[in-house]
Amino acid sequence: MRVLYIHSREFLYKPREKVKIDIAEEAEPTEKIFHNTLVTFITVEQGDFNRRDEILGAFINDIMDIMQKVKAESVVIYPYAHLSNKLEKPNNAIRLLRMIHRKLEQKGVNSHRAPFGWYKEFKIHCLGHPLAELSRTF
Amino acid sequence: MRVLYIHSREFLYKPREKVKIDIAEEAEPTEKIFHNTLVTFITVEQGDFNRRDEILGAFINDIMDIMQKVKAESVVIYPYAHLSNKLEKPNNAIRLLRMIHRKLEQKGVNSHRAPFGWYKEFKIHCLGHPLAELSRTF
Repeated sequence: MRVLYIHSREFLYKPREKVKIDIAEEAEPTEKIFHNTLVTFITVEQGDFNRRDEILGAFINDIMDIMQKVKAESVVIYPYAHLSNKLEKPNNAIRLLRMIHRKLEQKGVNSHRAPFGWYKEFKIHCLGHPLAELSRTF
Repeated sequence: MRVLYIHSREFLYKPREKVKIDIAEEAEPTEKIFHNTLVTFITVEQGDFNRRDEILGAFINDIMDIMQKVKAESVVIYPYAHLSNKLEKPNNAIRLLRMIHRKLEQKGVNSHRAPFGWYKEFKIHCLGHPLAELSRTF
């Protein structure tokens, strides 16, 4: 799993059009907006679902650590197909993204999961401090 | 070389702080802004400089093709260390990024190269149409 974290002053997105795959989730074409948020652009890679427990544990620990360091108030889980060439099957990717969301909620983190399988318009304002952009491979 | 293209309604950046490497380019901490632009986030990977002719040819062709399809008015070359774990030596990466810039200018493309080796604040507004976000490996 590849992750790009961006600590953002503001993040806004709006689903525009379904990608031509049957697996696109249902979503309202409404704008969602977040302030002082940690946006996590996530590419679930081939084989990640089989390693889900290991990945989930490491990722959640990492998010909690970064949240504390940068003082972000929420997390946005944003599916992103562009960080790797080896994508997991869509249904397994969605299952893993849902598990991440559920785990964050259990930890009391204010979190939101953007829909999978959509072309989305977005605006992001990256803060640009030394921890504002980080990348990881899990 | 890994590239993430984002066709943007607006893109703005401002150098904030030098990353602790000797190779950071000189840059003014002033805001630069672009409209209807194709932002190319670029990670130059180990070994890319040795393959520079091949990479340059393929990348410039690809940019020209996308520019025409999305009707962007300019290109921003934005060094980005987060698309790969295997980074080229900084001086070689800068040389390749400069070659890309020079080649685009020769082709008559309105292009700008953001400085290497800085933490930068940025705002991007991704248009969200089907060709607004594309990724490539060269």
